[in-house]
Amino acid sequence: MKKSIGAKTILFPTPVLIVCSYDDKGVANAMNVAWGGIACSEPPCVTVSIREHRKTYENIMAQKAFTVNIPSEQYLKEADHFGIVSGKNEDKFKATGLTPVKSDLVNAPYIKEFPVALECALLETHKLGTHTQFIGKIVDVKVETSALNAKGFPDTEKMKAFMFDPGTSAYYATGKFLGQAYTIGKIK
Amino acid sequence: MKKSIGAKTILFPTPVLIVCSYDDKGVANAMNVAWGGIACSEPPCVTVSIREHRKTYENIMAQKAFTVNIPSEQYLKEADHFGIVSGKNEDKFKATGLTPVKSDLVNAPYIKEFPVALECALLETHKLGTHTQFIGKIVDVKVETSALNAKGFPDTEKMKAFMFDPGTSAYYATGKFLGQAYTIGKIK
Repeated sequence: MKKSIGAKTILFPTPVLIVCSYDDKGVANAMNVAWGGIACSEPPCVTVSIREHRKTYENIMAQKAFTVNIPSEQYLKEADHFGIVSGKNEDKFKATGLTPVKSDLVNAPYIKEFPVALECALLETHKLGTHTQFIGKIVDVKVETSALNAKGFPDTEKMKAFMFDPGTSAYYATGKFLGQAYTIGKIK
Repeated sequence: MKKSIGAKTILFPTPVLIVCSYDDKGVANAMNVAWGGIACSEPPCVTVSIREHRKTYENIMAQKAFTVNIPSEQYLKEADHFGIVSGKNEDKFKATGLTPVKSDLVNAPYIKEFPVALECALLETHKLGTHTQFIGKIVDVKVETSALNAKGFPDTEKMKAFMFDPGTSAYYATGKFLGQAYTIGKIK
């Protein structure tokens, strides 16, 4: 039996997206975003939703660019830190000891130590309410060579990404392989 | 060292969102969507991206409503089936044996057997390219009582949701609890 719990932002899993950007002085910032995901296949787009008072909001509006970085479990503490402190009050790269690297194709930094980085050019913005949705066109994906599989894609088990549960504000690891899509669902 | 793998829709995790809708005759349909996530806190919004030729696209445009359902591992096969076959060619509820239930607040069905359902009223549509993004205002969340924690939120371990890896088209289980957000990242 189902119980109604009201109009809430409940979903699982939500990703742990570390969004990086530069301000007008070239200072790198990083922010932890759970409100986002892939939004289109062609052009390849990713979306992240951010409140207006954030440093990242200002930066993306000014530079029209950002990166989306996927942390591995090893950097759980740093990833959470990016969601606690504002870039208006702290240099978060200095505080965490992580390294911003200038992207090749857009004016935004990615995180050297994380396994995956998406370089994004700002395509559209949609103000929805408390959050504005930024649609980024993915212009390149960079992956640590140690996290690639034989076909040249990120290997989920090597990447060791984790996820966020907004209902309980908790992080969870990636679990075991369950099956291949478009295959296990062939009924009849 | 990082290797560039080009402009691709790489992200992990992406969710397994079963989007349900009615057509003009009241026939229920269900579709498997990985391109989506929460988009705003207030009003609470969820976004799903869908191609124009889909039955679900027609249905949402007509009814201005849909539900987002989170399957548990037990229904992996059925969830994948919803992503293989088109609602234009098959009654997917009949094929899978799952049960559509009319929502209380919007004109869309939810899935009786799944642990979580979000009832959504269509707020905005954005055509991005191959995919159109539907922004749904979450008007209610319904949770199986057996999947609730003591505070009345979905319990991740009881829910047993799974996720999708677009790079390898594989499903993965939820792993172990890693830590509490806004707490473990307090550096200094």
